[in-house]
Amino acid sequence: MRLEGDRMKLYNTLTKKVEDFSTNEKGIVAMYTCGPTVYHFAHIGNLRTYIFEDILQKSLEYLGYEVKRVMNITDVGHMTSDGDTGEDKMQKGAEREHKTVYEIADFYTKAFMNDIDKLNIKLPGIVEKASDHIDTYIEMIQKLLEKDYAYQAGGNIYFDVSKFPNYYELSGKSGEDLLVGVREDVEEDKSKRNPADFGLWFTLSKFENQVMQWDSPWGRGYPGWHIECSGISYKYLGEYLDIHCGGVDNIFPHHTNEIAQSESFLGHKWCNYWCHGEHLNDNTGKMSKSKGEFLTLSLLESKGYEPLVYRLFCLNSHYRSQLVFSYEAIDATKNAYQKLLGRTAFIRDNRFGEKELDKIEKYEMEFKRALENDLNTANALTTLYDVLKSDCTNETKFCLIESFDRVLSLGLLKEEKLEYELEQYIETQIQKRNEAKKQKQYELADKIRSELLEKGIELKDGREGTTYTIKK
Amino acid sequence: MRLEGDRMKLYNTLTKKVEDFSTNEKGIVAMYTCGPTVYHFAHIGNLRTYIFEDILQKSLEYLGYEVKRVMNITDVGHMTSDGDTGEDKMQKGAEREHKTVYEIADFYTKAFMNDIDKLNIKLPGIVEKASDHIDTYIEMIQKLLEKDYAYQAGGNIYFDVSKFPNYYELSGKSGEDLLVGVREDVEEDKSKRNPADFGLWFTLSKFENQVMQWDSPWGRGYPGWHIECSGISYKYLGEYLDIHCGGVDNIFPHHTNEIAQSESFLGHKWCNYWCHGEHLNDNTGKMSKSKGEFLTLSLLESKGYEPLVYRLFCLNSHYRSQLVFSYEAIDATKNAYQKLLGRTAFIRDNRFGEKELDKIEKYEMEFKRALENDLNTANALTTLYDVLKSDCTNETKFCLIESFDRVLSLGLLKEEKLEYELEQYIETQIQKRNEAKKQKQYELADKIRSELLEKGIELKDGREGTTYTIKK
Repeated sequence: MRLEGDRMKLYNTLTKKVEDFSTNEKGIVAMYTCGPTVYHFAHIGNLRTYIFEDILQKSLEYLGYEVKRVMNITDVGHMTSDGDTGEDKMQKGAEREHKTVYEIADFYTKAFMNDIDKLNIKLPGIVEKASDHIDTYIEMIQKLLEKDYAYQAGGNIYFDVSKFPNYYELSGKSGEDLLVGVREDVEEDKSKRNPADFGLWFTLSKFENQVMQWDSPWGRGYPGWHIECSGISYKYLGEYLDIHCGGVDNIFPHHTNEIAQSESFLGHKWCNYWCHGEHLNDNTGKMSKSKGEFLTLSLLESKGYEPLVYRLFCLNSHYRSQLVFSYEAIDATKNAYQKLLGRTAFIRDNRFGEKELDKIEKYEMEFKRALENDLNTANALTTLYDVLKSDCTNETKFCLIESFDRVLSLGLLKEEKLEYELEQYIETQIQKRNEAKKQKQYELADKIRSELLEKGIELKDGREGTTYTIKK
Repeated sequence: MRLEGDRMKLYNTLTKKVEDFSTNEKGIVAMYTCGPTVYHFAHIGNLRTYIFEDILQKSLEYLGYEVKRVMNITDVGHMTSDGDTGEDKMQKGAEREHKTVYEIADFYTKAFMNDIDKLNIKLPGIVEKASDHIDTYIEMIQKLLEKDYAYQAGGNIYFDVSKFPNYYELSGKSGEDLLVGVREDVEEDKSKRNPADFGLWFTLSKFENQVMQWDSPWGRGYPGWHIECSGISYKYLGEYLDIHCGGVDNIFPHHTNEIAQSESFLGHKWCNYWCHGEHLNDNTGKMSKSKGEFLTLSLLESKGYEPLVYRLFCLNSHYRSQLVFSYEAIDATKNAYQKLLGRTAFIRDNRFGEKELDKIEKYEMEFKRALENDLNTANALTTLYDVLKSDCTNETKFCLIESFDRVLSLGLLKEEKLEYELEQYIETQIQKRNEAKKQKQYELADKIRSELLEKGIELKDGREGTTYTIKK
């Protein structure tokens, strides 16, 4: 369904086209975004993806949608190859720092939260650790086995990609193309029927070092990386997703495998829009953690670039363009950001005429005095009511309400609340007026009408009853 | 240290007086607030305390302080008596619902977070689970044993209150007074030297059912409730606290015991201001969970009272007054709240003249079109720059910057940022002007001066160099 007046268009990796956006449920977007694997700090290229997803969420909200967004924190099952080979990323992090995987997960989850907070990224409504939902993965894998999409071999459970005809749709590549990408330095898993098959549950391979392990119908073990996102998405957003996001490096194998297992499990199409953010490059190519030293937000900060300068740097480019990081480029952005703030400061400081400024100062002082007096909130509220009754301009009143509500936090400026209350009020006034007319109290009826008109609300009496228009 | 122009006054339970407020570190408040024991839903009386603490934090921030606030989540060690007797609250919750204590903790933590979010309570910067800091408690208890403030008896470790002369200072009661409060239905702990002593670490008593348990130098066991807050506060806020908050029921024994153990451990005074919120009563007396049925925020909501109505209800009274809940009273608040919102809606809708409104609409449309076009953030930024260059009034510009920054999230309206950039800008202009004067480019120097004046900044040349004043 589309919102009235909605013209949102999004590039969909699935169809390789910019498409009109519509949702399964009117006005509500079910959005899943892949979260970090918490084995190390995020580099600023990783963070670019989260900035893109944040802008997507906030743009949708700005356009009137309610966004239900879910993100996972991967603390188990992610191999260095993104497939089933290589080392376990969490395990590798733990060895590197001589800590337990739990300590590693905890530390880097906090570091990640800290980064996104500094970038003014809104935390998704639901953030879930992969290791907290083992039951859900087991339930899904069982059904995939029953439906014959999965098989047991060498002690592990694999998804059989030959059973899922659209396996290569998202990546747009053929099976041979993808095999070229398989690393030669890792041993191939001989248990698989087809090299493209991927693991859903592991009990044997690389198991001896795996600290996180759970019981399952197939023996003690741990889940594959891909099933985590399918599972958490299913648990919190149900059978139909509107948008699934990630970085372009997630297209294959991660999102490709998610589609295969989720749609096989559900028996129908799962997600309508797949949106991917492009890489950040430096002069040596794609930013990556495997290269050793990498650029974190803290490192940027220590060099005098505050996080929001990096946010602006990202917003200056389109999320689907590769972006090249250089200190010259970020210097220019820093400059632009400072100018922007300076300009905003002037504008803010010159909003009001002197007379109104005096009033603002007076009421703000009253409000402060109330709070300073051992938190006299009742008096602080009285100041608010005094403002509403005062001869201040509406602009001044609005500014003071805003200022006071930073402390009172009564949600006085929440759009939906105001709209709703306004409607309620007008409806009540119309009813009162109708009642007055019925009782032949025409003077009262006229008074109600003109009071509303003064407030910018015009009533019209028609055959269907009284309607109104609001002049904004 | 006090802030310039600061007149904050707070009632201090420790001195039983309203006192001038000052902090250990200038401009920074180290604030610890006791969090919930997550064994059941919070009742609205519990929530009153969190509203009070939220207003305290936000008032301090409004007055210019930075508040470092820490809160614990108690998931282990809290007995039904608040002392060392009775049942373990978490255990009791788990038995009641046939779940594990971990499931109980997880579920009721989320429920709590949900409640405070609905009440527009800002989550403290640091929120820590009691069970995550066992090492810290052990470190403190070891030192208390070394310093002879604690003793081992019957397998447990107790704090010896006879060693701490000011033990009754906070509560202002004598030892005999307090003994009257001890419940008769629970068996006294015979291991204690003095009935007022309290447990720091338990290994034996009521141990068989205790699921959460850890190794310690005194055997496997679990920490006492009081040491949790002392430990978490010490770990995150260091040796000196400015404010410690809670409900009045925390004064004894919880905060009394915290002071005893923290000051004995630290060897100096710990916290300067102790602030306590009063109870919420209903017509049967103090609201409490032990009475069986109790009033939650969700229950209030289901009866048609939205959470912020309850917030307003609390703010109408002083936090140190007992407040009586009744449906008549909350109905009146609901009414007042609706009027407040309606009034605000009118003010908001009548802020701008028609000409400016047209401009706002035009630029907002441009901004939306950019975002709708597959998130063209570069164009969205161009719209922002266009606004800044336009002939809109400052008020209109400010309103648009505000609106756009909801999506861009560049922190454009953050007070400190703006102040800082403004200063930087003026300083740079002054330097440029001085340079121009040195080079005898008087025309340029005058131009810089008059440009600043146009922006409301007046330069004054004096013996000490150039100073400026900003007309707001």
